[in-house]
Amino acid sequence: MQKHTLTIILFCVSQFLFSQNSDSLQIKKFYDEALTSKVSYNNLKTLCKTTAGRICGTSQSLKAVELTKKMMTDLHFDTVYLQKVMVPHWVRGKKESAGCSSMITGAKYIFNICALGNSVSTSKNGITAEIIEVKNFEELKNLGEEKIKGKIVFFNRPTDQTQINTFRAYGGAADQRTKGASEGAKYGAVGVIVRSLTLAFDDNPHTGVMRYEENIKQIPAVAIATNHADQLSELLLKDPNLKFYFQTNCETLPDTISYNVIGELRGSEKPNEYITVGGHLDAWDVGGEGAHDDGCGCIQSMEVIRIFKATGYKPIHTIRAVMFMDEEIAQRGGKKYAEIAKLKNEKHIVAVESDCGCMSPHGFSIDAFPDTVKKFIALKKYFEPYNLFEFFKGYGGVDIYPLKMHGIPIVGLVTENQRYFDFHHSPIDNFEQINRREMQMGSAAIASLIYLFDKYGL
Amino acid sequence: MQKHTLTIILFCVSQFLFSQNSDSLQIKKFYDEALTSKVSYNNLKTLCKTTAGRICGTSQSLKAVELTKKMMTDLHFDTVYLQKVMVPHWVRGKKESAGCSSMITGAKYIFNICALGNSVSTSKNGITAEIIEVKNFEELKNLGEEKIKGKIVFFNRPTDQTQINTFRAYGGAADQRTKGASEGAKYGAVGVIVRSLTLAFDDNPHTGVMRYEENIKQIPAVAIATNHADQLSELLLKDPNLKFYFQTNCETLPDTISYNVIGELRGSEKPNEYITVGGHLDAWDVGGEGAHDDGCGCIQSMEVIRIFKATGYKPIHTIRAVMFMDEEIAQRGGKKYAEIAKLKNEKHIVAVESDCGCMSPHGFSIDAFPDTVKKFIALKKYFEPYNLFEFFKGYGGVDIYPLKMHGIPIVGLVTENQRYFDFHHSPIDNFEQINRREMQMGSAAIASLIYLFDKYGL
Repeated sequence: MQKHTLTIILFCVSQFLFSQNSDSLQIKKFYDEALTSKVSYNNLKTLCKTTAGRICGTSQSLKAVELTKKMMTDLHFDTVYLQKVMVPHWVRGKKESAGCSSMITGAKYIFNICALGNSVSTSKNGITAEIIEVKNFEELKNLGEEKIKGKIVFFNRPTDQTQINTFRAYGGAADQRTKGASEGAKYGAVGVIVRSLTLAFDDNPHTGVMRYEENIKQIPAVAIATNHADQLSELLLKDPNLKFYFQTNCETLPDTISYNVIGELRGSEKPNEYITVGGHLDAWDVGGEGAHDDGCGCIQSMEVIRIFKATGYKPIHTIRAVMFMDEEIAQRGGKKYAEIAKLKNEKHIVAVESDCGCMSPHGFSIDAFPDTVKKFIALKKYFEPYNLFEFFKGYGGVDIYPLKMHGIPIVGLVTENQRYFDFHHSPIDNFEQINRREMQMGSAAIASLIYLFDKYGL
Repeated sequence: MQKHTLTIILFCVSQFLFSQNSDSLQIKKFYDEALTSKVSYNNLKTLCKTTAGRICGTSQSLKAVELTKKMMTDLHFDTVYLQKVMVPHWVRGKKESAGCSSMITGAKYIFNICALGNSVSTSKNGITAEIIEVKNFEELKNLGEEKIKGKIVFFNRPTDQTQINTFRAYGGAADQRTKGASEGAKYGAVGVIVRSLTLAFDDNPHTGVMRYEENIKQIPAVAIATNHADQLSELLLKDPNLKFYFQTNCETLPDTISYNVIGELRGSEKPNEYITVGGHLDAWDVGGEGAHDDGCGCIQSMEVIRIFKATGYKPIHTIRAVMFMDEEIAQRGGKKYAEIAKLKNEKHIVAVESDCGCMSPHGFSIDAFPDTVKKFIALKKYFEPYNLFEFFKGYGGVDIYPLKMHGIPIVGLVTENQRYFDFHHSPIDNFEQINRREMQMGSAAIASLIYLFDKYGL
């Protein structure tokens, strides 16, 4: 009996080891395929160079819809289709301008600014007013209406350089951009200038979405380049009553039709159960090409299916690559996708998103229940040979968050992010900033994780 | 008695925890200082923009000596001095050229090449000969003198894309560059063209050192851009007898005087015991600025001392920042430094080198005896909050390797290296490729490790 038990144990152990070893070999195949292929890198180039400025509602965004649909068709995915979604249609209009003259020396200054997404415009004549510089809403409150009324509020709290996680640094300064206008307006401000949310000292204004609070006057809001914010702050020390001018031309048009773009590799055993992998197709309109944010995530999502097909891996479940529309403004694509999944009563195993830039992957974070988190963290061992060491409970992704609301585990790719906010929402988020291998290390990591989810569940 | 023992244990545990906690706080201080300072980033810019092409023996390299000496003096290091060393003096001369005409279509092709360091030159008329393409020395041997004599050998084995560690990929293809000329000459070749050692598909030739075997005819050796190598290889399939032309103008002059540049922060308790931290000051001369290789390592080494001074940390041992001369050709600077240390009977605790590019750090590798390795790996816990997960026995550094020969542990900074060989030894190794935070994450990591070595030994 004892001998029998030992035999069973040895058999189980050997099966386990065999299985682990065969998984490692399979993962190696995915990496080999990813690192030796130029397909996705070339596709990213096409997306970047032909659809720059593809913020939702624009013709560029519809061009990106057609383009990525064609890419997935050309890659012979089993099914490729569009999912209709109404999206906001905010347009920037003519390039913004800003400047001031010193009241003391008479010297003229020009500043690089851009309107924040969702903002109302100034009049054609722009706004000219004195500036009041603050670091946070507390300071604003202490100054009160008396000191603020009729002025432009200049939010100049820097993104915290001492944070190691740059997303945390970004999050710590983001309230100025998202809520600054309404907070200023409460005290009678006529406009707001917000220091760009980036850790770089550069001349590029970095845009991003802002939102107005209900029943508060809507005043124009712009971002200013960090170097120019520093310059303006210095000027104000010497010349506190200088008059600042800025002019913007943005406009919110009626909501319009757009699409999520979906491509599938049909499951061999459970075709009606889904694993989603996605990025967002829309990208800001300030001159950059949306390479890191988030052309890369879209192309990596397609690449997962391409890798599976190229290596002959036939998944049990249906794998869906989704290019979500409108992550940047109102997240309508993500919401629509989850809504339709719910309506159709689809069974979703897990959703994975890549939207943290196209640098080398460091790991994955999961937003799920504790038992699932535990199972997920146990997968780390497969990824250590590829320099992915970070597996933890955390953020999933903006576009897949609505799926989480239906109880589906969501997973985000974690990347090396020191340089990410140099590019983020700025004119330099270009294809030239992408390294093919770093991008493909991400593609292969996602493919490998989805393979393990597909095989072992979660 | 038992109670007394318990008290002692509790005291020891609390001391241990206090010590670990105070170390973590100290390390946080180093990171805060590094990430909020622009000094080193600006110094790297100056080094890159004023001393590009500073291969040893050149006037640019002497300018770099003076410049880094001045930088350390301006940073108020306790001692700054030059250490004389005789170095090779190889010069590239006028830009190289290469091309061919198709024997079939008559079409003309131009190729981007550059002479390999140490190579002899062609005549003014260049070399024109048929090409024989091979992947390795085995193939060369099989072809033999009959097929090779009078021809140009084209070594075209790609750097292995499937390697995750790009240094390993580089190492796996490097024999073509370092030994290819003599191997070809053994069978009567008149010159060699070597595929650039990079994982990028680009139009830049990547240079690097080559060496001639004694008593073998010295024939000219050049690197060719990877895109051009692929193009040439395709051409040869259709047109195997095409005549290839290349012309180079390099020359080896007599050895000349140069210097290691050394700056010290004097130890508070053991000023005659040393911890060395270094990078190499020389850099290739093909149009790049030696930003990643290895301006960054030099500046990071200075930055360690600047961080200590700025945060008020007074090390027990003397910390020496060393800018080694001539890593690229004959490693004379590193050898001289170890030779002088031995001569003066200096006690060295450990040496650390940064020469793996200016991307974010992943960890450190150590070349030392097993007990030291064990102690070193135990330090990993201090670095995990900063995303350094790789602490292992491995490579130390080329410049500090001669110290290892005297029994001193040597440590190398390990970086995120997927993109490193895109820049390496090429015209695009420029300051613009450097991210301030990634560089400073490295500086802070090295400072923290040296702090722990200084406090706890090895």
